[in-house]
Amino acid sequence: VLQALVRQFPHERFIYLGDTARVPYGSKSARTVERYTIQVANALLQRDVKLLVVACNTASALGLSALHRHSTIPAFGVIEPGCRMALSITRNRCIGVIATRSTIASHAYLDTLMQLDATADVHSLACPMFVPLAEEGWRNHPATTLIVAESLAPLAATPVDTLILGCTHYPLLREAIQTYMGDGVRIVDSASAVACTLDTQPVTVWRRAPADAAPEVSFLVTDVADRFQEVAERFLDGCIAVPRVEVIDLSP
Amino acid sequence: VLQALVRQFPHERFIYLGDTARVPYGSKSARTVERYTIQVANALLQRDVKLLVVACNTASALGLSALHRHSTIPAFGVIEPGCRMALSITRNRCIGVIATRSTIASHAYLDTLMQLDATADVHSLACPMFVPLAEEGWRNHPATTLIVAESLAPLAATPVDTLILGCTHYPLLREAIQTYMGDGVRIVDSASAVACTLDTQPVTVWRRAPADAAPEVSFLVTDVADRFQEVAERFLDGCIAVPRVEVIDLSP
Repeated sequence: VLQALVRQFPHERFIYLGDTARVPYGSKSARTVERYTIQVANALLQRDVKLLVVACNTASALGLSALHRHSTIPAFGVIEPGCRMALSITRNRCIGVIATRSTIASHAYLDTLMQLDATADVHSLACPMFVPLAEEGWRNHPATTLIVAESLAPLAATPVDTLILGCTHYPLLREAIQTYMGDGVRIVDSASAVACTLDTQPVTVWRRAPADAAPEVSFLVTDVADRFQEVAERFLDGCIAVPRVEVIDLSP
Repeated sequence: VLQALVRQFPHERFIYLGDTARVPYGSKSARTVERYTIQVANALLQRDVKLLVVACNTASALGLSALHRHSTIPAFGVIEPGCRMALSITRNRCIGVIATRSTIASHAYLDTLMQLDATADVHSLACPMFVPLAEEGWRNHPATTLIVAESLAPLAATPVDTLILGCTHYPLLREAIQTYMGDGVRIVDSASAVACTLDTQPVTVWRRAPADAAPEVSFLVTDVADRFQEVAERFLDGCIAVPRVEVIDLSP
């Protein structure tokens, strides 16, 4: 998501906060994810940001409503943008959603899609093995092919023509997913969807930095993660260097 | 570990605390794991236990020294018991250790083995994909076979005759690991090693419950985990039912 936003808005200053001490959120309860989302947002609000992007599907599914009540500045999740993009490109209104267990169990994608288009036919599926595969960087490993096939088999029997990658890790496995689903299925990822949504907001929602402003990205984490730099650079794919990472404490 | 302890000591009362809000520990820093270990121990000390077992290799590797300084009652980890058992069964003193990234990076197994027998030849290897496989229950899935083979390949070239499963999840993949390593390699798991160590402690270290005492196991978790019951029952393998699970808060 950060990569897509930096590319779309090259003059903005970004503060990225990774809650490395408590990830993954995908297996935690709604109450816990809500509490963590507000704690993370507070740390960013203290740094005087103008806009919040919840770049995590689980936190968007379970924490965004609480955040909207809590925050005085605009906050965007990744779910509604992904749903809108999927509905704009599907031809048969049959949409697949793959995500973590918590996101699927929250029904956030299903509810949002049905609110936007009550005639949509939605097929949701939890794929819990995809996060570890993405974090290990096993994009094209034979085990990845097997796990992708095993996990996505229930969708193969449906007429899904559009598939939402409802977890920010899944784009790293995009090639294996596309190969299994075939060229007839179009893949929607949260990152480009949220970048597109932010781009179409009026300046009354958020004011852009002037075109001569220097870009800047700073990284905050909640735990010294030796592998943060390695994994972040894999995800950012050469788009941004990860220079200095500051460790902060979110405990109240 | 709990399963092995209940079988070995059927008259004791056990309180199991799963820090489900913050797992996995295997990818967290030493400082964070140490802090979490003390918080978990405090919650158990408040419940007036007579003995602490740190049934997690990462917490044993990174948190046990701090716990020994902090606790007024005996505390046992799983590392020294596993090392002692491995040294007692190896014939060629060539021992393999597989564990999470944090446990391997801590050198806890290597240091303990070398203290116990400076002539041991130790081969350590991080296998980060094994935890998700175990949690999904993919014991005999074709992807498991591939991942086990890929992960353990560096050990195949060594003369290792004994392999320590240095993560409490790994015994669920024992069959696949044994198949790959071959019958010449003997596998040591933390669970039976720690049960054996506790069994050989004198009553001055801990006093056993009378033989007519009724057994009891209670479960505490730090997050409502819908899947806790399912995963716990898979791990306990019919040995103990998981009746009621109480959610507690560890935040200071």
